Amino acid sequence: MNKDFMQHAKFKRNIVQPDQAQQLIMPYVKLLETEHVALTEARGRFLAEPVLAPHPYPHFRRSGMDGYALRSEDTKGAATDKPVTLEVIDEIPAGSLPGVPLRPGTAARIMTGAKVPDEADAVVMLEMTEKLEQEGQTLFTLKREIEAGTNLTPIGRELQAQDLLLEAGRMISAGETSVLATFGYHQVLVRRRPRVAICSTGSELLRVEEPLQDGRIRNSNTYTLACQVQDAGGEPYILDSIADDLELAKQRVMKALEEYDIVITSGGVSVGDYDIMADLVQEGSVTMLFNKVAMRPGSVTTAAVYGDKLLFALSGNPGACFVGFELFARPAIRGMLGASDPYLPRLEAVLGEDYTKINNFTRFVRGSLEYKEGRVYVHPAKLDESGVMITIKDSDVLIVVPPTSTGFTAGQQVTAILLPKGI
Amino acid sequence: MNKDFMQHAKFKRNIVQPDQAQQLIMPYVKLLETEHVALTEARGRFLAEPVLAPHPYPHFRRSGMDGYALRSEDTKGAATDKPVTLEVIDEIPAGSLPGVPLRPGTAARIMTGAKVPDEADAVVMLEMTEKLEQEGQTLFTLKREIEAGTNLTPIGRELQAQDLLLEAGRMISAGETSVLATFGYHQVLVRRRPRVAICSTGSELLRVEEPLQDGRIRNSNTYTLACQVQDAGGEPYILDSIADDLELAKQRVMKALEEYDIVITSGGVSVGDYDIMADLVQEGSVTMLFNKVAMRPGSVTTAAVYGDKLLFALSGNPGACFVGFELFARPAIRGMLGASDPYLPRLEAVLGEDYTKINNFTRFVRGSLEYKEGRVYVHPAKLDESGVMITIKDSDVLIVVPPTSTGFTAGQQVTAILLPKGI
Repeated sequence: MNKDFMQHAKFKRNIVQPDQAQQLIMPYVKLLETEHVALTEARGRFLAEPVLAPHPYPHFRRSGMDGYALRSEDTKGAATDKPVTLEVIDEIPAGSLPGVPLRPGTAARIMTGAKVPDEADAVVMLEMTEKLEQEGQTLFTLKREIEAGTNLTPIGRELQAQDLLLEAGRMISAGETSVLATFGYHQVLVRRRPRVAICSTGSELLRVEEPLQDGRIRNSNTYTLACQVQDAGGEPYILDSIADDLELAKQRVMKALEEYDIVITSGGVSVGDYDIMADLVQEGSVTMLFNKVAMRPGSVTTAAVYGDKLLFALSGNPGACFVGFELFARPAIRGMLGASDPYLPRLEAVLGEDYTKINNFTRFVRGSLEYKEGRVYVHPAKLDESGVMITIKDSDVLIVVPPTSTGFTAGQQVTAILLPKGI
Repeated sequence: MNKDFMQHAKFKRNIVQPDQAQQLIMPYVKLLETEHVALTEARGRFLAEPVLAPHPYPHFRRSGMDGYALRSEDTKGAATDKPVTLEVIDEIPAGSLPGVPLRPGTAARIMTGAKVPDEADAVVMLEMTEKLEQEGQTLFTLKREIEAGTNLTPIGRELQAQDLLLEAGRMISAGETSVLATFGYHQVLVRRRPRVAICSTGSELLRVEEPLQDGRIRNSNTYTLACQVQDAGGEPYILDSIADDLELAKQRVMKALEEYDIVITSGGVSVGDYDIMADLVQEGSVTMLFNKVAMRPGSVTTAAVYGDKLLFALSGNPGACFVGFELFARPAIRGMLGASDPYLPRLEAVLGEDYTKINNFTRFVRGSLEYKEGRVYVHPAKLDESGVMITIKDSDVLIVVPPTSTGFTAGQQVTAILLPKGI
């Protein structure tokens, strides 16, 4: 190992701003191939093409009530003291078609969702009528006028044929599934999930199942990253963690870059005596995008490109690793999936407490959300150093604290990045 | 079929308020059995027991920097014009233990995350020192005093042994995974997922892959419900949809209640000529909890109990079916999982536009969220009748509109229920 180079390289990091760093990655994010999945397997996948309405919706004049389909003109003048009587000449359950045309003075018993006869222009609900049987005829009386269009959903009320139903790049959740099923899309074209290799480095790492040892810690970052990869829509592959053996680490990383779409390492990129990435860049094996970001935690975050693969070397500090993933690796995964917006949503919130820590870098502070009387507050976590692990679990947001020499006071407006939640 | 009974029963529904309906269900929600899952499979599962810290964290005095571990008293009086020189007698990579005790005037080269020697009480970062080689000795100079505790994370900084790490009933996401891995929980005790049978009723229903037919619609509710069940943490099982044959429907529902934890039907519960539920209740096969809720959409939502199984008969209208699931079935699923809060989160938001529809029932209006300058606004969907499907996909919230004879104006405060998002 060339220690002199390492010492040299590590002090020559070109620092970029966090948003610059995000922009440096995007040109290298390739759209992954498409594949068809069954609608029942499509939840959480991203549409690879826009979906259009093959027909209007509803595609027939639909009854909105259980009652009688009638011609509104037949109810003209109906009143409490002057009921109108109509003859029931048809019965139309949902899914059936009208059997006979309605003549003036006649109506059809109809169920919610059934097709309204062409001659009818309204449906009166059952509860507003009184049924009579008279000389073998079924009749009902009605004591008020019914307006044309009542309880009748016209063709195309929600959508016209060829209307855009769903944009490409949209994630499929319950609402999208409803649309797809309604229009007969039992197979959906989506992008395949990025295969993301995750690998921790550091000889201090114990496997999760190993007993504790003095001076060593368990490897938690790979498991956390695996969750984060799934939240983003990727498929995580946990590789064996590698000790601080530079040659071995390099070989492993290059092999992973051959086999996976994205490789994420954690640890080993700190300004220390061991630095895989600097060496890989020096050798020309990968092309560096950035190796230092003006942010806390995780300033020594590195991103590099190998062909159409991406390599992220995140800090080994749990807090910094978590933040580095959400800011840089997640957008890459979402970009490969063709997501219409690969970044986590941001919102303007009110700072719930003073934040007095000063910093000349942008700080991404773990925090919790609170809604109160129409306002949205964010509360910084009590412990948010890069090495702190315990506050990740209680964080709803990353509060974006710009460089400051004075800190911020409660009540000021700040930007917060909404962290992924849900399953 | 006893039409007279049906006609009778359907007008004799006992109406309950939505929150009463939720409370009527909860006593019948049983906690499901526990099972161990590997940490890598635990995402989205619910902890069945509280998790305690088996040891403090960190469990050794950890260096927060690459630099030198030293005795702060040795740096007393150090200044630019009066540098202190210390001898480096040890090198401690992360994961290794100190090799020799530090005597006064000596220090140890140390990496981020490594164990600080017992005799040292601070770490100075490498960049603040100047290295010298002199007569076979490695030395460094330092031009300022270092306070005790600098860059040194004490034992138990984040957690003490026996501290509560995670409460029972908590869902496992990235942050929880980080905690579990850190403390060696490679197997996690969770509750098994509820098995939820989903079944649409109605002879108007086409399978999703069938060509369109006049007067008939495709079965979209089962697919939407399957997504919603997964969002809630359950395992959906889509059963064949059943036509409006009362006997067949009853048999199918009872068989499903034997085999699954929860059965959800959609359609067939409207005030019409066909009503499975009323018949099952009348026969004593199931015990009714409620069969009408003072809400829109979905007033004809039914819940019933069969032993320790739950049956939900939701409206066949897509909008009403969606809302009915989120209000009633989701809390039952989350309750069976032992979730600490089975209900969707609520927030107070500002109504973004006038809402003029009047109603004597509480209305759950699909809406979108907007954050602006520290305030949170909700915008009601343009189309929100119970039969409307297309606006489900764009909804972030259900706006809770209480009974009103005047409507509500933009700027008023309203309660909104946050809908599940994410994968």
